[in-house]
Amino acid sequence: MSINKRPLILVTNDDGITSLGIKTLVELMTQLGEVVVVAPNSPQSGMGHAITVGEPLRLYKTDIFENVDEYECSGTPVDCVKLARHYVLKERHIDLVVSGINHGSNSSINVLYSGTMSAAIEGAVEGIPAIGFSLCDFKEDAYFDHAREAILQITKQAMLHGIPAGTALNVNIPAYDGKPLNGIKVCRQADAKWGESFEQRTDPQGRNYFWMTGEFMNLDAEKESTDEWALENGYISVVPCHFDLTAYKAISSLSRWDLN
Amino acid sequence: MSINKRPLILVTNDDGITSLGIKTLVELMTQLGEVVVVAPNSPQSGMGHAITVGEPLRLYKTDIFENVDEYECSGTPVDCVKLARHYVLKERHIDLVVSGINHGSNSSINVLYSGTMSAAIEGAVEGIPAIGFSLCDFKEDAYFDHAREAILQITKQAMLHGIPAGTALNVNIPAYDGKPLNGIKVCRQADAKWGESFEQRTDPQGRNYFWMTGEFMNLDAEKESTDEWALENGYISVVPCHFDLTAYKAISSLSRWDLN
Repeated sequence: MSINKRPLILVTNDDGITSLGIKTLVELMTQLGEVVVVAPNSPQSGMGHAITVGEPLRLYKTDIFENVDEYECSGTPVDCVKLARHYVLKERHIDLVVSGINHGSNSSINVLYSGTMSAAIEGAVEGIPAIGFSLCDFKEDAYFDHAREAILQITKQAMLHGIPAGTALNVNIPAYDGKPLNGIKVCRQADAKWGESFEQRTDPQGRNYFWMTGEFMNLDAEKESTDEWALENGYISVVPCHFDLTAYKAISSLSRWDLN
Repeated sequence: MSINKRPLILVTNDDGITSLGIKTLVELMTQLGEVVVVAPNSPQSGMGHAITVGEPLRLYKTDIFENVDEYECSGTPVDCVKLARHYVLKERHIDLVVSGINHGSNSSINVLYSGTMSAAIEGAVEGIPAIGFSLCDFKEDAYFDHAREAILQITKQAMLHGIPAGTALNVNIPAYDGKPLNGIKVCRQADAKWGESFEQRTDPQGRNYFWMTGEFMNLDAEKESTDEWALENGYISVVPCHFDLTAYKAISSLSRWDLN
C-alpha cells in the first residue's frame, strides 16, 4: 500500500452492526486507516460461510460510528464482504478486511461455524489481507479494553509484513480476568468438537421442539502448539487459515481405490 | 462395520427433503444398507456450515420414501447431521453419512458455500465416514441416472477401504450430455472464485434491493490435477476435504512478526 495514503480498511462482523465488539474494532481501526463498515443488521452468529441465495439483499446507510462510511446489510457476514467488495467499494482498493470483535470464541473447530471468520476468509478468497478477531466471552456487555493494544499490534504487523496469500488470520483473545494477557502466540487449530445434546420441549400447541446445547471437547493430544492451549494459558492465539480444503495426504490412499 | 449387519447410512442434503437429488440418493443407498433420512424441510442452498443459534429446531417424521426411517428438520444441513447423530440415532453407530445429490456444482471454491458438503464435513467432524455428491446441473428436474453406477461404486469403495479420518469426500458429477461419463478422478480443489456483480433494483416502495449474480473464474494455473479440469473433461471428480483450516506453511512466516 502507498505510504502517502491512509489504508482502506473494511470492517464487518457477525454479531450485527450495533454490537459492542464492532464498535471497539471500528474505534481501533480508525487509528490505522480510513474505515468503511458493511455489517449485518441482525445477529448472524453460527452462519458459517452462508450466502444469501434466491433472495435479494438490502443495504442501508447508517450513522452509528464517528467519521466512518457505514452500511447495514440484510445478509450474512459473507454477503457483507461480497457487497462491500463488488458494490460499495467496487472502484477502490481494499487494503485490509477485519471482522469482529466477535462476542465468543472462534478457536479450534468453531472456525467452521463462525460468521466472523467466514467473513475474513471471504476477504482472503478475494485476495485481500484479512483478520478475524474474537473474544472468548459471549456476553453482550463483554469487556474488550484489555485486548486493544494487541489488536492494534497484530493489525500493524499484518500491514507491515503482509498476510500470506490465500490466508486469513483467526485471532482469539482470552476473556478478561483482571490480569494482563501473557502475550500473543502463533498456533495451529486444535482438534476439537462439540458433544451436542438436544433438549426436547413441548410448545403450547403440544408439538415438540429442540434446543441444541453442547459441551466443548478438546481431542488434541499435542496440546501445546494449539490455539486452545494458548487461550487456556492466557495468550492470544493467532491461527493462519486457508480455504483450500483438499486433504492432500488422503489423495494417495484414495488413488488405490477401484474407481474405474 | 460388521459383515453380518447391514450398514447404517444417514442421508441428508441441502435442497430439501422433497428434491429429486435426495430421492435418487435414497434409492441408491437402500441397495447398500439401512437408510435413515434427516433432511431440511426447505431449500438450504448456500448455507455453508451454518448452524441454528438462538432458535429452537423442529423435527417431524415424514413418509416420502419407501422402507426408510425419515425426518424433516427446520434447520440447516449441519443441524440435520447434529440432530441425527445426537438425537435420532443417539444410541446407534452410523456407518456412513451421504449428502446430496446436490442440484448444482460444489467443486472448487463452491465447497465453502455448500450446505451439501458442510453436512458431509460435519459427519467427518463426528468421526463418521462421509461423502457429499453433487451434480453440475442446478435444474429442479435435473437428470441423475447417468451417475447412478458411479455413486454406488464410490460408496462401495468407501465402505470397503474406509475414508481417511477427518476427511469427507467431495464428489462432483458432470451434467448429462447424452454421452457416457469418462470415469472417476481423485483431484484437488481448484483455485477459483466468483466474480460477483450486484444488480440493483427498486421495489414498489421506492427502496433499493440487490440481486447477487456471479461469473465463475478458474484461477488455477496447473489445471490438470484439479476438480474443475476433471469435470470439464467428462470425469467425476473426487476431492478429499478436511476441516483443519490451519495454513501450516504460513506459520513460519508469521513467527517472524513482532508480536510480543
